[in-house]
Formats: sequence, C-alpha cells, structure tokens
Amino acid sequence: MADGLGARLETPLFEQLTLIGVGLIGSSLARVASRKGLARRIVAYDNDPDVRAKVERLALADVVSPSPEKAVQGADLVILCAPVGAMGEIAKTIAPHLAPGTIVSDVGSVKEAIIEAVAPALPGHVHFVPAHPVAGTEYSGPAAGFATLFLNRWCILTPTPDIDPEIVARVESFWSAAGANVEIMKATHHDLVLAITSHVPHLIAYNIVGTAADLETVTQSEVIKFSAGGFRDFTRIAASDPTMWRDIFLNNKSAVIEMLGRFTEDLIALQRMIRHEDGDGLFKLFTRTRAIRRNIIEQGQETAAPDFGRGVAKDTDEER
Amino acid sequence: MADGLGARLETPLFEQLTLIGVGLIGSSLARVASRKGLARRIVAYDNDPDVRAKVERLALADVVSPSPEKAVQGADLVILCAPVGAMGEIAKTIAPHLAPGTIVSDVGSVKEAIIEAVAPALPGHVHFVPAHPVAGTEYSGPAAGFATLFLNRWCILTPTPDIDPEIVARVESFWSAAGANVEIMKATHHDLVLAITSHVPHLIAYNIVGTAADLETVTQSEVIKFSAGGFRDFTRIAASDPTMWRDIFLNNKSAVIEMLGRFTEDLIALQRMIRHEDGDGLFKLFTRTRAIRRNIIEQGQETAAPDFGRGVAKDTDEER
Repeated sequence: MADGLGARLETPLFEQLTLIGVGLIGSSLARVASRKGLARRIVAYDNDPDVRAKVERLALADVVSPSPEKAVQGADLVILCAPVGAMGEIAKTIAPHLAPGTIVSDVGSVKEAIIEAVAPALPGHVHFVPAHPVAGTEYSGPAAGFATLFLNRWCILTPTPDIDPEIVARVESFWSAAGANVEIMKATHHDLVLAITSHVPHLIAYNIVGTAADLETVTQSEVIKFSAGGFRDFTRIAASDPTMWRDIFLNNKSAVIEMLGRFTEDLIALQRMIRHEDGDGLFKLFTRTRAIRRNIIEQGQETAAPDFGRGVAKDTDEER
Repeated sequence: MADGLGARLETPLFEQLTLIGVGLIGSSLARVASRKGLARRIVAYDNDPDVRAKVERLALADVVSPSPEKAVQGADLVILCAPVGAMGEIAKTIAPHLAPGTIVSDVGSVKEAIIEAVAPALPGHVHFVPAHPVAGTEYSGPAAGFATLFLNRWCILTPTPDIDPEIVARVESFWSAAGANVEIMKATHHDLVLAITSHVPHLIAYNIVGTAADLETVTQSEVIKFSAGGFRDFTRIAASDPTMWRDIFLNNKSAVIEMLGRFTEDLIALQRMIRHEDGDGLFKLFTRTRAIRRNIIEQGQETAAPDFGRGVAKDTDEER
C-alpha cells in the first residue's frame, strides 16, 4: 500500500491485543494493528463511555469491552494507553484477570514512575515491558489517531533486567511491524532524555502562551493577530491534552526540574548577553543551533519544507 | 490566478520600487510586486555580489543595480530590506540621491531603533514610513522568497506623527495589494508586541536548542533521534538567520528584557508547582492555553491540520 506501512503480516504476532485507553495513541495502535494484522483479535476498553461508543462507531476494534477486567481476558498482549497517573490503578484492576504468560506494556511518556506503580501490582506470571512511542499530535481522542502515527518514529523500551530478552524481542517486533524504530534503554535514562526532548519543550510552550495571555501592555487580540512572528509555533504543543501533561510533570519531577534548571541558567546568560550587547556571543549561539535542525531533517525526523510546509501555496525556487 | 493574490493592478501604485537588500523578505516583495504590478519598474540592490548575481539569474527585478546610490535614483518608493543593524548606514548612503517626495520604508522587525537610526539621516524632502510585515520562514536569501509570503499576514506601520496621512495611505495600499492586512501603531508599542509574539519566542527556541546541545547526560544523537516529542518544533525558528536575529535583540533590548522577565517569572512559578505537585494549578494553565490556539486558527493565522500538516499521509477520521 502507498501509506508506507508495507504488507500485512502473514501470521499475526499475537492472538489478542487488548488496549486499555483509546485516545490518540491507543486508537492509532488499533488502526495500525488492524491494518498490518499484528493481532488476530483487537479488544478495546476506555473508561469514558463516549469514547467507547466512538470506538464502536469507528469500528476500531473487534470487541469494545464494558470493563477492563473483561477486556484483558484472553489477551496475550495488553497495552495500557491511559494517562501516566492512571496506570497504577488500571494495573491493580486487571491483575487478577491476566493469564499466565501475558505480556503487559504501556505507552506512557515517563517510565520510572510507571514501573514503580505498575510492576508491583502485576502477578508474577506476567511479563511487563514498558514502552514509549515518541510520536503524537496536538489532538486527542480516538478520532484523532491514524495508522501511520508511529511510522519512522522511535519507540523506546525500558525493560527491567529481570525480563526475558525473548519477551522484549516480541514487543520489539510488534513496534517494528507498526513502522517504528526501536531503542532499548534504562527507565531513568529515558526520563532524562525525554525531559529535554519533550517535557521541558512542552512546559516552556505552555508557559509562554500563559505569559502572553496575562500581559497588561499587550492585548490578547494583538498576540493572536501577530502570532505568525513565531509565537503560533508554541501554541501547537501548548494545545496538547492537559490531563496527560499534568501527569507527566507530576511523574517526572526530578528530571524535569533538573533540565529546567539548565534551561533557565542558559536563558539568564543569554539575557545578560543582550543587556551587555554581546553581539558576537548571540551570533555564535544562533549559528550553531542551525546545525541541529539540519541533522534532525537528515535523520527523517522532520520536514525540510519551509514553515513546516504549512500555509499557502509557494512558488519557491529550487536554488535555496 | 489560483495563488490567492487576486488580479494584477490596472495602474501601478508607484513608478519605481527600489529594494535595498534582497533576502527572503526583499525577494518576496520583488515577486509580489511583479506578480501584482505594484510598480512600473523594480530596481534591486544587495551588498552581497553573489546575491545580486542570483537576483539576476532569477530575474526578480527589472534592473539589478551595482550600488545603493544608483539603485535609488528615479525611485518614488524605496524599501530597505536589510538586517536591522544595517539600516542607519544605508540611509546615510542613499540620502543625497533621493528625489523630493520619495517614500522611504523598511521591513525591519524592530521599529523604534530603526526610526532613531534612519529618520535623522534622511533629507527633509522625503517621507519615512516604517513598516514591518509579520511574515517569514526559517530560510534566508533571494531563492527562499515567494509571492504569497505576505498573504493574510499582518503588516504593521509605525509612522511618526509628522507624516502626512495620505503618504501613510499610499504605503498601506501597497501592502494591501501585496495581500497583507495593515495595522498602524506607535513604534514603542510595536516593539513591545513583537517582543512577546516573536522576539522572546525566538530567544527561547535558540536557548533550548543550545541547552540540549550542551548536556553531558544526554547525547546530541539522542536529542536528534527523539526530537519528535516536541523539541523539533523549536529547531525551526532556531534555524532562522543569525545576523538578522542578533540585530533584533541588540535593537529591542529593553522590551525583550522586560518580556523575558515576565516569562522567567512565570516559568519559576510553574517549576514551583511541579516541585510542590500542584496538579490542579498545572491542569488549569494547560487548559486555558488551548483557547488561544483555537483563536489563532479561527483568525486565519495558523493551520488546523494536526502537527502543522507535516509528515506522512494521514487517514484521520472526520469526527475529530
């Protein structure tokens, strides 16, 4: 097919995939699992009855289950796709209903706190392989998902040392078949990496949008009108799901505060350069930041199109 | 035509438009002026011989002039499209060669410093109408421009009180015909508005890219790999032209430092909320920031497409 996901698997990797939580990520997983034939049967549960009804309407799963306990029955792969703060309770609820040998995974954006909350709640006869697909959009809910969300994105697995490597390999195959690249690292390191590549960027985006809204000297209408000067870029990630992001910051506190400290320290130094009119210092920083974007584009993690390719038709010349 | 710019004018607004500086903005002005017939003749000068050669090759102007003095001869509209820090010198150079009644304008991203540098250098028999089109991409140079860059964007004029309103109206007509909406305000207010909607956003984007590059605990290769979690968004504006941005910060020092102070104050409060696990406080901020993006989209300043519409094909459902 032309969607870049390649051919459907001849043999499913799992008998029954159960998704607990069917928002942007859960519904994208349902779509790609169905498109690629990753599991013989897809069962979905969401604690919001409206979401369950929508999942039925969109025919995203073979079965929409009325309870998490029922949903996990018969599953050999269960993926928790709920906000980080809800994972522990879900694990407790489903624990007695998990068959021996079941693989339990998740998609949470922090990993150490999830391991601490989920692992102790699960029975010894299941395998827990924490995962985090680094992908998303600013939209939420089951209608916002799409099958190619994970294509060429990275999925990070953070298994604890006691997990059988063959089990980890099965989860890796699942994500590879969904189009993702897989990397394995320690949970603590994951939390540090994501603090700088995702959590702090979201925090400063939320923050500047808040700052702009609260000014007395510049009206909100002016902020909106003249947002094309750069501000509007920040509003995209500042439009992300509030529950999800509250939970991330509460559960990756120390890494976020550490990275935020570095950011603020650097920002104060930059402010000082402006105050003392250190043009060379500013120029030097502004030059080396260009190289990083070039690398991100070269590695297929970003578009080279001007302005993210958004907006009106362009007659841009080739000579750029 | 289907480009949204509408029909070509029957009568040009000016006899000769002279552009001093032909980068992204200057070359976009040349393109739209030619496409819409805004001037009978377009003359261009750039202090970089390579740029002049490129402008010739791309046939962006009727005449590419070898000097700024020659370029302004015969012009009834001169627009300075150089970095903010170069405007004063250019004004001094062209001043003796400007005919009585010529309108001089610019496209600089700060206005008070430009008025201070340019106005005293110009002869009493010309009219200076400072302007700032709030539009751009992260690319630079004459090949990066396009005729629709200003379409539906805002152009801010900041004329001093001594300027004849009819002269201001002529500059307004020029920008309207180029597709822009025009707003008139005081230079000091412009500098405050742009500090929050453009300058501080660029500064924090440059800053976080610098912070991420300098970490010892997270490698640059990890930052690049996992940038899709939010970080990559910031790299776009942190890839903007270093000379242009150095000059902006040096020339809008007090407004930038004031807005940066507000930003940092709010960020520290947010950090404190995380430290004290104030989930409600975080949730409240993360909710109200969504409304601002909705407004920006409604007012045509941003795309509603997920993820700016970039990336792979999407089979997103309509129900979002």
